[in-house]
Amino acid sequence: MDRTFEEYKKIVDDHLFDFIPNVDTKSLTLYEAMKYSLAAGGKRLRPILTLAACDFMNGDIYEALPYACAIEYIHTYSLIHDDLPCMDDDDLRRGVPTNHKVYGEAIALLAGDGLLTSAFEAIHKDQMLYFDDPKRLIARVKAGYTISNGAGVKGMVAGQICDIEGETKKYSNTMLEYLHLNKTGALIKSSIRAGLYIGNADSDTISRFDKYSEALGLAFQIQDDILDVTGSVEELGKDVNADERSNKNSFVSVNGLDKAKKRLNELTEDAISALSVYYDNAEFFTKLALDLKNRNK
Amino acid sequence: MDRTFEEYKKIVDDHLFDFIPNVDTKSLTLYEAMKYSLAAGGKRLRPILTLAACDFMNGDIYEALPYACAIEYIHTYSLIHDDLPCMDDDDLRRGVPTNHKVYGEAIALLAGDGLLTSAFEAIHKDQMLYFDDPKRLIARVKAGYTISNGAGVKGMVAGQICDIEGETKKYSNTMLEYLHLNKTGALIKSSIRAGLYIGNADSDTISRFDKYSEALGLAFQIQDDILDVTGSVEELGKDVNADERSNKNSFVSVNGLDKAKKRLNELTEDAISALSVYYDNAEFFTKLALDLKNRNK
Repeated sequence: MDRTFEEYKKIVDDHLFDFIPNVDTKSLTLYEAMKYSLAAGGKRLRPILTLAACDFMNGDIYEALPYACAIEYIHTYSLIHDDLPCMDDDDLRRGVPTNHKVYGEAIALLAGDGLLTSAFEAIHKDQMLYFDDPKRLIARVKAGYTISNGAGVKGMVAGQICDIEGETKKYSNTMLEYLHLNKTGALIKSSIRAGLYIGNADSDTISRFDKYSEALGLAFQIQDDILDVTGSVEELGKDVNADERSNKNSFVSVNGLDKAKKRLNELTEDAISALSVYYDNAEFFTKLALDLKNRNK
Repeated sequence: MDRTFEEYKKIVDDHLFDFIPNVDTKSLTLYEAMKYSLAAGGKRLRPILTLAACDFMNGDIYEALPYACAIEYIHTYSLIHDDLPCMDDDDLRRGVPTNHKVYGEAIALLAGDGLLTSAFEAIHKDQMLYFDDPKRLIARVKAGYTISNGAGVKGMVAGQICDIEGETKKYSNTMLEYLHLNKTGALIKSSIRAGLYIGNADSDTISRFDKYSEALGLAFQIQDDILDVTGSVEELGKDVNADERSNKNSFVSVNGLDKAKKRLNELTEDAISALSVYYDNAEFFTKLALDLKNRNK
């Protein structure tokens, strides 16, 4: 456990296209559109969490890489679909035009579908390498399940629906936390769990990290909401004040800036204390919680 | 192997919602939109093929049911996305208004995403039941892989991209067969393979059925193209002459009706002869090829 965020990020960026199935030249546009959004950058937070969690368990992080990249495919598909005109109708993402602005809506839709499906193809393809090693196969099926669960109708997609439906109603804090725990938190939790499974974590470790993930996921989203008000287009690489324009329920719109910052601090403390039993061994994760709180993009 | 198409269909219809994760009441709209399109009917061809293939191997078809239903979730997601205004912009599907006509584009998009993800969640959830039985776990991982592959960027999504791109160019027959083998054939092949894997088929059996699937998938699509010209809205439950209106490359538009019918006959023969080694044991599949050729909806 001696790698930095940037070191993990380099590994993710170097291998990000490795687990997309070889596309036939007859459907090259699809491949280009998928690569466009994947290559557009981003923090790579989720795949980095997968690698770091595996590393924490002294697992081989290259064995976690297919799952880490699959999660980034899923995250990227969700951004492409989220940016479509019928959803948030955003023109700018990660500092470049959104997928549909470049390729048109139909291809952007399919690039998203392709990335989501490729994630599960990559996962199953990796699982097939472990047919002679049932214990490791089982760990990888668990990793696949947690990813499908975090991305699915009890996770990210549920959060997206609440987000869309919230444009016409004012949410309570309970509903707002439900929204964000699902929209952002669920896949973050799955990202860490996937790495822990590949690293053969026991159930105590998983439940401690689950507490960390839930607090971190919510804190991450609150900071997103705060930056939407206090950040700049140049720093964020996307439009600001988007929540207000689209009548989105955000921590800031519901609670005001001060209360949002207070909740962010509380959750960051919660995340850190969930792993206090590991002292310095969990330093990557505690430092990350602080860095995400203090980020300006 | 003594069940009819209708008997398999009843099993699929009776259990179609069983493998969708329990959705929280807070995101009930999502669940309703997913169920709306699933419940709208359809032939259930793909899941029936999965059950019949498992039955052919004397496997327990109820063990194949999660995979059969997952495939119908994937098929249904592809129809919802395909009907969206940015794709084929269809108002009618299976005799009822399309998903976005009822729920709006944003929720239709997410219902599709939810169905696709639910498919892989259902698959992984089923795999987790077999941790104490590596041989059966392996068969189920293979089934998951073939489904992800048939639905993915080397399968159905590749076909969709070709279909969309074909609106602005005239395809050769080679390109047209590539389009349809992917758009329709790939998931049909995976449907049969999934059932065969659950039934522990050997590689010879799988390769014979692959030949059957490829011919059947292509024949099925050619008959679709023919019905788009010769059928009625009442019989088909969807708009007719849609290919011509949207400048789609179809077997009929490229080759004319007579040649399309000739190719349909050839492919039906090919499908039947691929399984001739099984004599009457493959009667369900040979009868199906003939029935699909003679269908009027």
